[in-house]
Amino acid sequence: MHILKDRILNDSVVLQGNILKVGSFLNHQMDIALFNEIGREFARRFAGVPVTRILTIEASGIGIACITAQYFNVPVVFAKKNRTRNLSDDVYATEVKSYTHNTSYDVIVAKDFIRKGDSVLLIDDFLANGCALEGLADIVEQAHASVAGAGIVIEKGFQDGGSRLRARGIRLESLAVIERMSPEEGVVFAPGPQEL
Amino acid sequence: MHILKDRILNDSVVLQGNILKVGSFLNHQMDIALFNEIGREFARRFAGVPVTRILTIEASGIGIACITAQYFNVPVVFAKKNRTRNLSDDVYATEVKSYTHNTSYDVIVAKDFIRKGDSVLLIDDFLANGCALEGLADIVEQAHASVAGAGIVIEKGFQDGGSRLRARGIRLESLAVIERMSPEEGVVFAPGPQEL
Repeated sequence: MHILKDRILNDSVVLQGNILKVGSFLNHQMDIALFNEIGREFARRFAGVPVTRILTIEASGIGIACITAQYFNVPVVFAKKNRTRNLSDDVYATEVKSYTHNTSYDVIVAKDFIRKGDSVLLIDDFLANGCALEGLADIVEQAHASVAGAGIVIEKGFQDGGSRLRARGIRLESLAVIERMSPEEGVVFAPGPQEL
Repeated sequence: MHILKDRILNDSVVLQGNILKVGSFLNHQMDIALFNEIGREFARRFAGVPVTRILTIEASGIGIACITAQYFNVPVVFAKKNRTRNLSDDVYATEVKSYTHNTSYDVIVAKDFIRKGDSVLLIDDFLANGCALEGLADIVEQAHASVAGAGIVIEKGFQDGGSRLRARGIRLESLAVIERMSPEEGVVFAPGPQEL
């Protein structure tokens, strides 16, 4: 997706430790016109796939998921990061490790909002080690629903989240896959299958 | 806004302690068609008001702000809740009390994303005691920008956030103002100025 890759090349900053700062357009300030292009592209890639619900995780997935939902005409559910030890019986929960913050937290979704038989499209801004997305897939399984696929804006292709999700049988569509990056070299993308 | 009030009457639950559960359509599962009606209504109410940026706060304001931004053609910035004591120099920060969780946290926005001279529309799902929204207004002031107004989906009119924000000179547009509520009586709205 050229418009996205160009934006990453022009407006991101690579820091030491495999950190890519895209806060000017993706996950702090949000360019809604770009989000519409992203939503349209997810709809194109998942055309013909039944989707009854979109599931994302707070906070930075929410905006992309809401704009994308307009192209699927389905509701969005965002999983919450629960930092307390209290879990009620009316939620699905799974533990997710955060390597960024060297901690772990529970991801929860109210049972009312993922139903048996739902076909759930997972949406998130980043895929790196895949822990958050695996947590969302776990919740969908707990609900006896199915994962229609996962739509990711930026995949760090040099981390193993992508291969772990594909090994699990999840159809993964990442709009920009980074092959490698460094403060000196910047971002180098993996070749895309169909470039727009 | 009749469509919103009807939805609240039909799909919300009032719990003890002035808690209104609207997770089925507003702040856990999100009805994007309703969000578009909300965005359109904010655009109608703030017609003619210059808006260069929308500012909201994670997590439940983000979806409403992103859909609303499509009617203003401006970027959205979401303030982050910072739970650590570390603050870098490149962020605006203000402390916000959370009565719900009996704690306080810093709300932060990177300085790059609110500029001097910006006319900033604040958007959030709820207004109760107004602490979060006052924090957003503080950040706008720190940036030497101005608050164009505040668009709120549900105002708890029996709490003092609304009067405090209006006393500060902020134009407040709440789409549904709750006069009182209880588990027994349910929700009773204050009369609206112009009902759609």
